Amino acid sequence: MKRIAIDMDEVIADFHSKILHTWNRHFSQELTTEELNLFDLHQDDPEKLEEIFELAGHPDFFADLAVIPDSQRVIASLSKHYEIFITTAAMQVPASFNAKFRWLNTHFPAIKPSHIVFCGNKSIINADYMIDDNAINFVDFCGEGILYTAPHNRHVTGYRRVDSWRDVEALLL
Amino acid sequence: MKRIAIDMDEVIADFHSKILHTWNRHFSQELTTEELNLFDLHQDDPEKLEEIFELAGHPDFFADLAVIPDSQRVIASLSKHYEIFITTAAMQVPASFNAKFRWLNTHFPAIKPSHIVFCGNKSIINADYMIDDNAINFVDFCGEGILYTAPHNRHVTGYRRVDSWRDVEALLL
Repeated sequence: MKRIAIDMDEVIADFHSKILHTWNRHFSQELTTEELNLFDLHQDDPEKLEEIFELAGHPDFFADLAVIPDSQRVIASLSKHYEIFITTAAMQVPASFNAKFRWLNTHFPAIKPSHIVFCGNKSIINADYMIDDNAINFVDFCGEGILYTAPHNRHVTGYRRVDSWRDVEALLL
Repeated sequence: MKRIAIDMDEVIADFHSKILHTWNRHFSQELTTEELNLFDLHQDDPEKLEEIFELAGHPDFFADLAVIPDSQRVIASLSKHYEIFITTAAMQVPASFNAKFRWLNTHFPAIKPSHIVFCGNKSIINADYMIDDNAINFVDFCGEGILYTAPHNRHVTGYRRVDSWRDVEALLL
């Protein structure tokens, strides 16, 4: 059985909407989803980025993220044909461990704890496919990276790309 | 650079001594380190096992585990020749996430958070070597498992075995 490693934030959990809402409220702005690019902020405004990540570092920030449409249904279908692991970069926000674990248990109860991985550098993951919004995770990955579209990765090329879980369904089922 | 995945409990963190101490105090017994075999308890006395794991499930249980002798020195040497990841099964005791993370940060500050992995089923780990006390983790592992001796695995065969970090040093350096 082939194995799929599935990222959490921006792939099954809608991190961006909450951080956008948090950002606009905190800085009294009205940025759109396209205008807020956290990746660019590393260079453009690291202080603001640090400030917003402090808010995201609250233990409960991850608790109420919305589920990305169709992810539950498609992952349930995929799990009949593939071994599914959730592989999420949690090590930079240790305060998120428990909220992320509870979120998965609530929204994806069929995924066993044994198939949840909290990691940092994802080259440690041994899988056939990795569905992720961050192409940096594909660089030393032993399988094939499948890029899940997010505002910050629209210009990235070199990987098969999916815009939605319906696209994943068409690609892998 | 080849990569080594290193387990935490019983390999770098002395889990057994603390659970033995906790057991003897809780059940008013005086078992020796050889007499307490948590693995056998799955069959022999699951109720007692559950009781003791409830105590181990306290968020701070993992905080004050002793460091296994020579592990810090040898891992520091290994890190000059290998890429080191800590890969620990944390998903069955979610309350341990933060204590384990802090423990690593305290005793192995040179290991970056990006190289710490909390997982369950370790077949997800992509490494050349895995140093672990639980041979079940080697079954579907893509690299070579190196068995770190613990009371519960003395009769396991089929893998290269190390009794101490000095043995690891001799084997891999």
